[in-house]
Amino acid sequence: VLNASLAGVIDECRKHAEIGTLYGARFGLTGILREDFINLFDPDEETISRIARAPASALGTSRHAASQDDLIRTLEIFRRHNVRYFFYTGGNGSMCTACQLDLLAREMGLELQVVGIPKTIDNDLMETDHCPGYGSAARFFASALRDIGADNRSLPGQVEFVEVLGRNTGWIVAATSFARSREDDAPHLIYLPESPLPLDQLLDDVDRVYQRLGRCVVAVCEGQLDETGQPFGADVRVSSRGFLAMNLAHRLAVLVNERLKIRARGEKPGLLGRSSALNVSSSDWLEAGLCGRHAVIAGLRGQGGNMVTLMRDDQPEYAVHTGLAPLHRVALRERAFPVEWRSNAPHKLSPAFLEYAAPLVGEISNHASFPEEPSG
Amino acid sequence: VLNASLAGVIDECRKHAEIGTLYGARFGLTGILREDFINLFDPDEETISRIARAPASALGTSRHAASQDDLIRTLEIFRRHNVRYFFYTGGNGSMCTACQLDLLAREMGLELQVVGIPKTIDNDLMETDHCPGYGSAARFFASALRDIGADNRSLPGQVEFVEVLGRNTGWIVAATSFARSREDDAPHLIYLPESPLPLDQLLDDVDRVYQRLGRCVVAVCEGQLDETGQPFGADVRVSSRGFLAMNLAHRLAVLVNERLKIRARGEKPGLLGRSSALNVSSSDWLEAGLCGRHAVIAGLRGQGGNMVTLMRDDQPEYAVHTGLAPLHRVALRERAFPVEWRSNAPHKLSPAFLEYAAPLVGEISNHASFPEEPSG
Repeated sequence: VLNASLAGVIDECRKHAEIGTLYGARFGLTGILREDFINLFDPDEETISRIARAPASALGTSRHAASQDDLIRTLEIFRRHNVRYFFYTGGNGSMCTACQLDLLAREMGLELQVVGIPKTIDNDLMETDHCPGYGSAARFFASALRDIGADNRSLPGQVEFVEVLGRNTGWIVAATSFARSREDDAPHLIYLPESPLPLDQLLDDVDRVYQRLGRCVVAVCEGQLDETGQPFGADVRVSSRGFLAMNLAHRLAVLVNERLKIRARGEKPGLLGRSSALNVSSSDWLEAGLCGRHAVIAGLRGQGGNMVTLMRDDQPEYAVHTGLAPLHRVALRERAFPVEWRSNAPHKLSPAFLEYAAPLVGEISNHASFPEEPSG
Repeated sequence: VLNASLAGVIDECRKHAEIGTLYGARFGLTGILREDFINLFDPDEETISRIARAPASALGTSRHAASQDDLIRTLEIFRRHNVRYFFYTGGNGSMCTACQLDLLAREMGLELQVVGIPKTIDNDLMETDHCPGYGSAARFFASALRDIGADNRSLPGQVEFVEVLGRNTGWIVAATSFARSREDDAPHLIYLPESPLPLDQLLDDVDRVYQRLGRCVVAVCEGQLDETGQPFGADVRVSSRGFLAMNLAHRLAVLVNERLKIRARGEKPGLLGRSSALNVSSSDWLEAGLCGRHAVIAGLRGQGGNMVTLMRDDQPEYAVHTGLAPLHRVALRERAFPVEWRSNAPHKLSPAFLEYAAPLVGEISNHASFPEEPSG
C-alpha cells in the first residue's frame, strides 16, 4: 500500500499552489544522491490512481544505509533544488534517517520540513496504533492459511508448515488466526517469535494435533528461534537486524518427518506476502492514502520532525484519525507484540488481539463445506 | 476448481428423475471402502453454489493407491447400494483406477457407467485440449511472478527464484510468461523441466540478466533437474512418480549466492498455488462445471468407460465443447509440453504456446508505473 501513500502525497500537493514541483526520488536515498528525480506532477490522474493500486514501490527503494556524508550531500542537493518539504516513507530504519536529516537541517539552518510516513508490514513502529502495510500482509497470510488449510483438510495425512513474514515480531503470524472459521480449521498451531520454541515442544504439539485430526497446519514466523536461540538448523542470512532463516518451514518439515515419521512439507510464500496485489485490505489501503495526505498538510503547517500516526477513535465502531509523533520517538525503536496479548496455548490468540486486528485485516470469508465434519 | 465439477455433477443429476440418490464418497476411494458417503442431494442450492467456489476438494481426497482387492470391494459396495453411475475426478492416476473399475465391472457383468472427469493442475492428461485446474494454477503463478517482479524491480540488487508447481511438465512454469507486460519485466528466466538445466548454464543466464538489469527473477519448476539428472543438491521426496525437490528455489538461491556472490533468495508458494481462492481463472471455473455436467449426461447415455474431454472450437475466438475419450487412452499416460512450443532462449515461449494458454489463464493486468524506466 506504499503507492497509496505516494498517491495521497501527490493528490494533496496538487491542491496547494505554494508547491510548485513535487520530485520523486527513484530508489529512495540512492535516487536523491544521484539526483535521479521525476516530476510527480507530470503523470495524469488516471496513471496516479493506477499506481496507487500497484504493489511494491513505484518509485523504487534501496538497501543503502545513509552515512553522515550522505545526509549532508542530501541537504545540499535539497538546497540546490529548493526543496522545502521532504516526505519519507518506511519503517523504523527510515524514520531514523528522517530524524537525522531533520536534526541536521535545523543545525544547518535550512528551512526544511521533514515528515515521516509510516509503512511497514511488520507493524512494529512505536506511537502509532498500527502501520500501513500490516493489514494487507496479515490479510495475505490469513487467506493463505485458510486456503492451504482447505487443501490439508481435503488431503489429510500431512503436516504443513507455512512460513510467515514479520522478522522478529509476531504481528503477522498472530493474524493467521483469522483463517479459522470452524473449530479444527487451520492453522492448528501458531507460534509467536517473541518466545523461543523448544524443538521438543513443537514436535509434541504437532504430534498431538496430528493424532487427533490426522492432519496439521502450522503457522511459523520466519524469525522463530529455538530454545538455544538458533533457527532449528535452517540456513540463515545475517543482516544488521539479526539473522533471518531462509528456509525455516522446509527445515521444520524435515525435522517432523525425521522425528515423528509423519509426512510433512513447508511452504514459503515469502515476498509474495508483501507484494500480492489481490490481498490488499481495504482499510489498509485507505489509511495509507490518508497518511500520505496528512503528511503534506503537516509539512505545510510547519510540523516537520514528526511522523504521521494512525490513532484509533475511542468508539465501538472502528474508525481512525491521524496524529503526529516526534521522529526521535519512533526512530529505531521496535514495538513488540504485547505480552498481555500472548497466550500460553500455541493455537489461541487473546480476544484483545483479535479485536485489535480484525478491522485492519478485513473479513476473511470462510469456504463452504458439507454440513458434517469429514472424519479424517 | 474441482468443486465446480462436483457442483456441475450435482446440478445435472438433480435434473434427471431416474437418479434417486447421489452419494459423495468422503476422501475418495478411502470413503468408498469405508462406506463413508454423504447424500449430495441434501445440501440446498445456496450451499452447493458456495461449495462450487471453494478451493481443494470439499469431499476430500486420498493418497491411497487402489489394489485389485480394493476394486473388487468397491464394486461389491456399489452393487449393494445400487450404484449405477460412478463419476471419478482426477488426473492420469485416477483415470487409471477408473479404467480398471470399468473393465472389472464389465467382467463381473455389473451395470455400471464409469465416467472420468479431468482435473489436474499439471495439464498433462492426453486426449483433452487442456485440463480443469490448469488455468487457475497457471493464473496464480503468473500473478505471483508479476507481483514478486514488482517487488524485485522496486528493490533491486537481488536474484529471486520462484518455485512453480507442475512436477515434470512445464505447462505451469511456461505460463508465468503472462506475468510480463513490458520488456525487462519478470520473470527474466523461465526453465521448462522437460530439458535438463546444467548449473553452469543457469549461473551464466542469471549473471547475464543481473549484469544488465541489476536484478533477476527466475521461474523454475519444482521438478527441474540438472545435467546429471539431480535436483541441484536439493532435498527430495521420493514418490511413485519420481522424486520431487522440496526446497529447490532455496537451494538455487544458495548456489547463486555462493558462486556469483549476488544476494539471492527463493520463494515457494507451494500448495497455495493450487488452493488459492483468489486466483481462479473464470474460463477454468466454468469449464470445470461443464465437465461435471457432461459426465452425468454421458453416464445416462451409457457412454461409460470414457473421460470427458475439452475440445477447442475451430474458430478464431476461444470457445470449447466437451467430448469423450476412452479411459484406457488416458490412464497413466502423460502429455508432455510440446517440443515445438519450446524455445532455445530461457526467457521466451513460442507464440503458439501463448496463443494456446492465454484464454485458459485469463488476462493478467499489468501494474502501473511511472513513464520512464527506473535506471536500476
